[in-house]
Amino acid sequence: MTPTTVGILDLLRRSQGYVSGEAMCVQHGISRAAVWKHIGGLRELGYRISSAPRRGYRLDAAPNSPLPTEVLPLLATHRFGRAYHFLRRTDSTNRVAGELAEAGAAEGTTVVADTQTAGRGRLGREWFSPPGVNLYVSIILRPRVQPVRAPQLALVAGLCVVRAVRCLCPGLPLRLKWPNDVYCDRRKLAGVLCDLSADMDEIRHLILGIGVNVNLPPTGFPGGLAGAAVTLQEMAGIEVSRPQLLAGLLAELEQAVELWVDEGLGPLLDEWRHLSILEGREVRVHVLGQELTGTVTGLSREGALRLRTATGKVREVLSGDVTVAEW
Amino acid sequence: MTPTTVGILDLLRRSQGYVSGEAMCVQHGISRAAVWKHIGGLRELGYRISSAPRRGYRLDAAPNSPLPTEVLPLLATHRFGRAYHFLRRTDSTNRVAGELAEAGAAEGTTVVADTQTAGRGRLGREWFSPPGVNLYVSIILRPRVQPVRAPQLALVAGLCVVRAVRCLCPGLPLRLKWPNDVYCDRRKLAGVLCDLSADMDEIRHLILGIGVNVNLPPTGFPGGLAGAAVTLQEMAGIEVSRPQLLAGLLAELEQAVELWVDEGLGPLLDEWRHLSILEGREVRVHVLGQELTGTVTGLSREGALRLRTATGKVREVLSGDVTVAEW
Repeated sequence: MTPTTVGILDLLRRSQGYVSGEAMCVQHGISRAAVWKHIGGLRELGYRISSAPRRGYRLDAAPNSPLPTEVLPLLATHRFGRAYHFLRRTDSTNRVAGELAEAGAAEGTTVVADTQTAGRGRLGREWFSPPGVNLYVSIILRPRVQPVRAPQLALVAGLCVVRAVRCLCPGLPLRLKWPNDVYCDRRKLAGVLCDLSADMDEIRHLILGIGVNVNLPPTGFPGGLAGAAVTLQEMAGIEVSRPQLLAGLLAELEQAVELWVDEGLGPLLDEWRHLSILEGREVRVHVLGQELTGTVTGLSREGALRLRTATGKVREVLSGDVTVAEW
Repeated sequence: MTPTTVGILDLLRRSQGYVSGEAMCVQHGISRAAVWKHIGGLRELGYRISSAPRRGYRLDAAPNSPLPTEVLPLLATHRFGRAYHFLRRTDSTNRVAGELAEAGAAEGTTVVADTQTAGRGRLGREWFSPPGVNLYVSIILRPRVQPVRAPQLALVAGLCVVRAVRCLCPGLPLRLKWPNDVYCDRRKLAGVLCDLSADMDEIRHLILGIGVNVNLPPTGFPGGLAGAAVTLQEMAGIEVSRPQLLAGLLAELEQAVELWVDEGLGPLLDEWRHLSILEGREVRVHVLGQELTGTVTGLSREGALRLRTATGKVREVLSGDVTVAEW
């Protein structure tokens, strides 16, 4: 979107009714034909704009899309989302953000796509990323913490998703599944993926990728996901604003990440444990080809999952894939 | 180096004396002028080749350089060094290896440079990398271990440097300084740098970078390093073969890394502790801007440095920069 397009959108937004084409021409020093082209561009992005002879143009509705023009005005952050890259379609926002980070992009730089052609989840799994309905966002972090603490960020991010969703859709039975998933009604609502680039001493960058199932109709999931995934719209019964959800999420993240860098997981643990779906459950944990079974007794201060095994021994698992034996 | 150049070098090597230019022409189906060009190329790489009318060419000496033609014939490994990239000059072998890894290069892929223009050490420090004398090598690893174990690789690599050096120069007072340096006579002989790319569950790749001061004359170090660094040649009193040292190092690494992946640091700890220069010493450790002082009491099974602080409490440090209070 060019600055002129953004300016024209701004004119339309601040007016109660119609804005004459001439006013736009004068304000931006462009021709009638150019105005028409900018209006066309906005319509293509999903803005509903009426035009009437002698009256001009009127903005009827903005798209429910994480366009910069929709998200940036809602941002309450200092750094997160301030550099904002919106892509209609890309392979993976985490990959794009990783490239930007390598090239030196600042902390808080945010990459959002309307659809991903190769959206990734953990362990090489796919993240279903259809266009027009959900959120796929990656944020570049450069926390001054030891690389060994990096996996904790997934816990922080999951909690932030819950907090941001709670603001827009109060009352949903949101839960966290260690280490990286947000559940609602025992189905997956959102997932977190962290990509780490570090040396022995410091984190060069961490790419925090978050996918949230927002407004996809329940019939929209492919076969394998149908019973396992859920959307906000299905649970809340309303269409949820993607820009609002994203702006809220970025605000929660900026605050929580700062706290985590300074004080570790400590201040977040109580809330996390309270939301944990695994507490007290019998689980199987897969860690790099090995399997461990036991009853979840909680979370350590470092974010490890605590398991009591059949022999009564308590084991701490730093990372792994958890399956619940029985709900 | 083209296959024809390598073939001509091979012919020269397998002959006791002169090889006629005609034999080379016939064997490779090339002209006299082309033979002359290949001989010129080899000379440029440092091969000393005599030529005599009617007798042909004779290989008098191979360069002491980690050229593929010098290293590959010495390799006793299965994977390490089998894909071998030699660069006369690059910014940083770790950077190049990182790019190759991103592009999917296999485990064991090795990048060697004769000189680095931006050789890196830990914590953003420079690694002095003059041409013609030392070793700068980076190896791509893809170990199936949890990312949290990645920093242990520096310990494994340091031990391998000691073992490889010991084979070529027995009797040197080699020591290890936690976490990543090899010392000789209280001066730095070699350093290790690990670059990690991982998600929460697995390591995508680890770039293991190793720099060894081999044959630089003692006067060759810049002012700041003069008293702090040392070379093998200075300590051993002989010029050390860079190809032999590198081939030995790759063999030690392949074996030790395999053991570490399967069994952890355990089988290597005794040897490490025995070589540790910090054992029992009073040290200051800098960890991300914080300082910790204490007496080193050893190494944990996970490779952390154990410190007894002034209050008698034992602390484990996972990463940090260690300064010895007094030798």
